[in-house]
Formats: sequence, structure tokens, C-alpha cells
Amino acid sequence: MTEFAIRNAALFTVNARDEVVPSGTLHVRDGRIHALGPTEAVTLPNDCPVIEADGRFAIIPGLVDTHSHSSLMRGVTENLPLMDWLPWYQLEHRLLTEDFAYHSARLCYLEALQSGTTCVMDMYRFMDRCADAAGELGIRVQLAPYVADQPGKDFFASREENRRLIRTHHGAQSGRVQVWLGLEHLFYCSESAYREAVQLSKEYGVGIHTHASEQFEEEAAITAHFGKRSLAMLDHYGLLGPRTLLAHCVWLNAEEIARVADTGTAIAHCPISNAKLASGVAPLGDWLEAGVTVGLGTDGPVCNNSLSLWEEIKFASLIQKATRLDATALPADQMLRLATIGGAKALGLDADIGSLEVGKKADLVMLDLNASNLTPVAVDDKGGSLLWNLVFAASAANVHSVWVDGEQRLQNGQPVGVSAQKIIDAAQEQGLALHQLCRQNAHLRQSMQ
Amino acid sequence: MTEFAIRNAALFTVNARDEVVPSGTLHVRDGRIHALGPTEAVTLPNDCPVIEADGRFAIIPGLVDTHSHSSLMRGVTENLPLMDWLPWYQLEHRLLTEDFAYHSARLCYLEALQSGTTCVMDMYRFMDRCADAAGELGIRVQLAPYVADQPGKDFFASREENRRLIRTHHGAQSGRVQVWLGLEHLFYCSESAYREAVQLSKEYGVGIHTHASEQFEEEAAITAHFGKRSLAMLDHYGLLGPRTLLAHCVWLNAEEIARVADTGTAIAHCPISNAKLASGVAPLGDWLEAGVTVGLGTDGPVCNNSLSLWEEIKFASLIQKATRLDATALPADQMLRLATIGGAKALGLDADIGSLEVGKKADLVMLDLNASNLTPVAVDDKGGSLLWNLVFAASAANVHSVWVDGEQRLQNGQPVGVSAQKIIDAAQEQGLALHQLCRQNAHLRQSMQ
Repeated sequence: MTEFAIRNAALFTVNARDEVVPSGTLHVRDGRIHALGPTEAVTLPNDCPVIEADGRFAIIPGLVDTHSHSSLMRGVTENLPLMDWLPWYQLEHRLLTEDFAYHSARLCYLEALQSGTTCVMDMYRFMDRCADAAGELGIRVQLAPYVADQPGKDFFASREENRRLIRTHHGAQSGRVQVWLGLEHLFYCSESAYREAVQLSKEYGVGIHTHASEQFEEEAAITAHFGKRSLAMLDHYGLLGPRTLLAHCVWLNAEEIARVADTGTAIAHCPISNAKLASGVAPLGDWLEAGVTVGLGTDGPVCNNSLSLWEEIKFASLIQKATRLDATALPADQMLRLATIGGAKALGLDADIGSLEVGKKADLVMLDLNASNLTPVAVDDKGGSLLWNLVFAASAANVHSVWVDGEQRLQNGQPVGVSAQKIIDAAQEQGLALHQLCRQNAHLRQSMQ
Repeated sequence: MTEFAIRNAALFTVNARDEVVPSGTLHVRDGRIHALGPTEAVTLPNDCPVIEADGRFAIIPGLVDTHSHSSLMRGVTENLPLMDWLPWYQLEHRLLTEDFAYHSARLCYLEALQSGTTCVMDMYRFMDRCADAAGELGIRVQLAPYVADQPGKDFFASREENRRLIRTHHGAQSGRVQVWLGLEHLFYCSESAYREAVQLSKEYGVGIHTHASEQFEEEAAITAHFGKRSLAMLDHYGLLGPRTLLAHCVWLNAEEIARVADTGTAIAHCPISNAKLASGVAPLGDWLEAGVTVGLGTDGPVCNNSLSLWEEIKFASLIQKATRLDATALPADQMLRLATIGGAKALGLDADIGSLEVGKKADLVMLDLNASNLTPVAVDDKGGSLLWNLVFAASAANVHSVWVDGEQRLQNGQPVGVSAQKIIDAAQEQGLALHQLCRQNAHLRQSMQ
């Protein structure tokens, strides 16, 4: 039984009233938040271990990355439009081995924890090994195998692999591992794959994750091929609904946004990836006004190249302000919600994580406010200037400690119980080997698209 | 006499050929770069102190922030369009004392050094005290007093203060302090102030720094008031030329961009501030194609809220890619140039800083590559994947050491010879006092615009 408390910290609850406790105590028992409130209002048992924050730290709910792809290819496939970039990316998948996948996942989950992310939706291959990696680091993961069943796409995962992974891993590691039905893309998956996913989602009670409407050219190609736009095709396959999470959705029109909202379908918004691959500026403000459930996603190291949701939060707000010419668009409170409870809701986990509330799992991030980039610090019950500085000035460097399920997984920026150095060293070695393999097999990418 | 070498580091020279030495040695003597090249090609004196990088570190030229305003008001004046925001900002200036200015500047220069910025163009008040702050931290600063001489604008600096500061401080601290003629804005400064600045610029050999064409509404108001657009007014005052640096310029049209290029006038590009205050998306790509000299600027903690140029570099590239729908726009090599040699050129300092070249001042940043967010690391003589990861994945957290004029000013993220804790503590105390003073005098802002 874990039990501890953090005393005299600023608590950003991100609850339904966005309450902030400027000097509060948070009490964790058995992996869940047992009590929280102003320090004078929380009575702790005599023997409860206490971390004295002394006004120097703030606690926020763990950040939620709703769309990522583990990879060792950061910085390799650069300066390419999406359609030229894809064959390179697919080459990685074709050459990927279990070992590469494991070391990729370890590196990515380490970076996630070090930047305050406690839950990652990862779409990748060999996801049983990704689960192993998550177990070592103690991070919460949602695993969506990269399934493709169209001819020539056998370098992705198979439908059978996905079914097997659900049976072997869904709910593993005290529930920290959940398995989703992953579907690569309309061009790569058959109608039968979509329909099976809908059925299995009900049967196993798991979510469905896929990409949709990322690029203008893609949307045009889908329409030319299927005679319908992406969203209509997914709708036709019965895919829309509250257990489905669509990544990107940059090019949805107003009618489609309304349909997404009406069906309770969620969107994983990846603004940095959308910018870097020149997919465009997704109308985040319109989605939220329409009532769509939205989380933020990094889209992984290949197309970001960082896994820090702090960058994503700031960028997501700024690009809306700049392109809507509205300085009040996507303010700090809304951005903090998107990165926490919004992401949790998009993953169907909002009953358990995403905010600091009694009974929820203790997925916590402790930020060190004693830093030049956050000074001066002023917190009131609306958050004060610190709320704005969390969204527009904070970075991974301010992440001091992280707990998942009430277990400390990061302390003073370093993972607990595993060696960051060993993870980095192994990823370095494996990464260079994979890069070389890709170069040696560069001719293969010509057959991919 | 300082003398030392850094051995077996990746050297990103940012010279005219963008040369990268994957495993190089850089030899510093008397504050300047004495030699650099592949390790086997650089012979060091026997008694030269050597920092062994062992492939773990990269050296880049110090980053140059071409437009900032020190401030203790980070996170306070939020969620406001520029025209509503300005009175709050001006209130700070009205209530500012020498002490506030000094502590602001210390905090800002600390954050700058901690994020790898070695040279800051600061436009603020009481700049003799900013020079004191710079002296303590050892950072290179360009001081442009916030001069305004129109009636009712006496809460900014006076023309006499600017003249005095040139006489007392230009070239101080072994040349690390340079004074510029600062002019707030066309609405706040008289024709005589501009014409005097042009004359004094020649007389003292100093630069001129002012704001121009930041907002659409501002440009419309200028045209309505003066019968000419901003750039035409500045041109009419004789201000354009190679010693003039204009901040923002978001709304320049094609003809004006050509005029800026033709006159050799430089632009301080502040894309994050332009987004946050909803000023718009400046056409950076068009400027560069027209041959304009461009540096990057943070615009200070009030409207960013970070002073990390790493964020600025990434954002500046991404927002161009996203809005031009061109994934190849503003690639990594170009971004690294803008943040280093581009900034140096915009400040008229490119003969001395901005690149790693023999004879240049040793303003150096040493980045720790042994980090989850930069792994795997691969460097070749074009920079390899590391070049892309520097621009799209690196952050202040990767900045290990900084030298200015060959003197180490940051070591393992902490300033040398001064206490970061004392600077932060004092800024915290002063900051809260200033915030309170602003709240108490909030009624005064109604008279400002």
C-alpha cells in the first residue's frame, strides 16, 4: 500500500471548476488521491510520509499524449512533404525488429516521463515489447498496433496480432497497459478490418484509434478513390462513436466537425506535426466550440521532433491566436485542460485520470517553480500568473518528479528504479544500427507509398 | 589571458559554408577563437587546459536575441489584444524604479544564459542598472533605452538619458555592453527625436532600434494619422539603413520589404510574440528571399513568456511551414543561422560573433547530447540528424555550459560567480512588489494608450 502526501504545494486540480489551491496538501493512498485541499483543511495520519513542497513546487495532473509513435528515427527523415516522407517512415516499419521496437519505446517513454507525460497513446509495432518497456518505466500506455491488411502493407501489424495483444495485454500492469484496436489508414486497411474493429471494440470494451484527414492532398485522394471523404468513409464503416479516437482531422469541414461532435468521437490534435509536415492548421477553436472531445498529441519523435507536451500546449494556443488574429483564443486554462483532462477524456480514461480529484488515480507531476523561466511566481485560486506561465513559459526542465498510480517514477528529472543512461546508451546503439539498415535498404522505399 | 580548448565535440560552425566538424577541437585564447577543426588537425600548447567532450557535447555559437524587454511582469497582462494590453505594459514602465529594472534585468539575463543566449538586445528603462546586471552575469548586451518624447509619454526614457548612456556605457565591460539609440514608436516619438537619432548614430557610431508595423490596426492608425504607412514615415525621417534594426514588421507589403532589403535595414523577427498578441504571421520566407537581414527575438517575458530562443527557432520554422503549406520552408540550417549569425548581422556584430571562426570572440554554447530528447545522435559534416534535432528537439535543458568572450558564464546550467538562487529570490520579491504596485495604480492605465 502506497501512502504519502505532498504539503504546501500549488495544486492545479483541473477539475470541472478549474480550482487552484495556492498552498495545498495532496494525500495519496493505495495509488489514488485520498484527499486534497488547502493544507490547513487536510488531516494526515501521523505516520504518513510527507514531501514538504514549501511553496516551491506545483502539482498538476500528469500530461496525456493522445497520439504518438515510438521511433528511433528522430531527425532522419527531414524536410520532406508528407507524401515523400511516408515511404521513408514505412521503410522504418519494414525493417523494424522486436529489439528496435523495445529500445525505441523505452527511449520515448523515458522522454515522456521526463517531460511530465504520464500516459501515452502509442501506435507502433511489436507492442508486447512496448508493454515491457512501459513496465520498466512505470508509465501508463495505450497500445494501438499499427494494423494494415491491404496487399503490400504487411510491414505493419496484422489484425491477428492486434487481437492477440488484446487478449494478452489489455489491463496488464495493474491496468496501466490498455490495448486498442489500431488501424493505419483508409488506404491501408480493408472494409473488413474496420468492421471487425467495431465489433471487437464492443466485444472487448476497447477503443479504436486511426488516422483521418491529415492532409489536403490525402483528402482529395480519398475522395477520388472511394467517392466519399474520409469522415464519410469511416462513418460508413460504422467507426464513429465515443470509443473512437481519430488523429489529426486537419481538413474536416463544418458538417464533419458537427458529425464528430454528435457521435462523441474524439480527436487527437497534433499541431506541431501538422505544421512540420505542412499538413496545415487544424481549426481547434471550431472543434471545441462544436463540443468535440480533444486531446493533444506529439505524433512521436519522427515528426515533431520532441515528445514534450509543454511545447505542444504552447504551440497549439499560439498558432490559433496567430491565424485567427485573436489574442484571447485558446487561453491558458483551456490549454491546460486539453493536455490533461481533455486527453484523458479522448482516451476514455477521464473517470480515472486527467485531474486532481479524490478517488482518481494518482498520476501527478511536480513542477519546480524555483527557476528563472517561471519567476516571479504568483498563484491565486484562479491560478494567477503561474497558470499563464505554465502554458507559455514552462518546459520539461521544470519537471522535478512524476508519479503514476501513486508510484514515484521520476525524481529530480531521473527515472526511479531504472537507469536513464542505460536506456539512452542502448537507444543510441540501436538507433544508429536502424539508420544504417534504412540507408542500406533505401531502394525498398521506392516500392512503398 | 584566458586559454582553453574543448576537444572531441561536434562543432556547428555556422560559417558561410555551414561547416560541421563531427569530432572537433576548438581552441580559445584571449577571449577569441584561436583555432578550430577536426581534433587531429588542431595542435594545442602542452599547458592548454582541455575540456574533454568525448563526443557527448556539441558546440554552437551563442544564440542572439535581437529584441527583448526585461520585465518582472511575466504572466500578468494576459489574454488581451495588443491595444488593451499596451496600457498595462506602460503602467509597468510608469511605476518602474531603478531597483525593479536592475532585478528584472538580472533575472532575464540569467534566463537568457541558461538557455544558451549570449547576446541580448534589451529595450528597457534605467539601462545603466541593466548594464550592472549584465556585468554581474557576464552576458553581452545591446542596450536601447525606451525613448519617447511626445507629451504624456514621460514614463519612458528621455532623449537626454539615451545620449548620456551612450557617453557613459557604450563599449563598457570590454565591449560587451553597447548602447543603441532606442525609439519607442512613431506615435510616441517626435520627428526631431528620429532625426536626432540618425545624426547621433553617425556621430557615435551606434545603431538605432525601434518598433515598426507590428499590427494591422496599428498600421491603419499610422496611415490615418500621418498620411503614410509606418515604413514610409521612417524612411521620410531618414531612419532606414544598415545601422537600423526594426522590431516586428509583420505587416510590411512587398514594396516595403524590397525597400528594407535595399537599404540594408535589419528586422528583429519575434514570431511567438506576434502570435501571442495576435499581431499575425510575418512573412519570414519572403523577407529572406528578398535578402533582408533577419535575427530572432523573444520580445521579453511579458509577451512570450519564455526567453528561450530554442522555442523561437522551432516556432519560427513551424509557423511558416504550416501557413505556407510547405514542409521544406525554413529548414534547420537556415533556422540555426537566423538564431546565430543572422542575429549577429542584424546587430552589426557579425565581424565579431555569430559563428565559430578563427578570430571571432568566443561566445560559445556547449550542449549536452546525452539526453532522451536528442537520442539517437548522428552527426556528419552537414550536421546529420543532430542538426534537425537541435532546431526541432533541443531546449534550454540541453544547455550545459556557456562562454562569453571566452569566459565561462554558465556551468552545468548554473551561472558562474553569481548565485542563481539569489537572483531568483530577489526577482521574486521585487516582482510581487511591482505586481502589487501595478494593481494599486490600475486606475492610471486609463490615461494611457
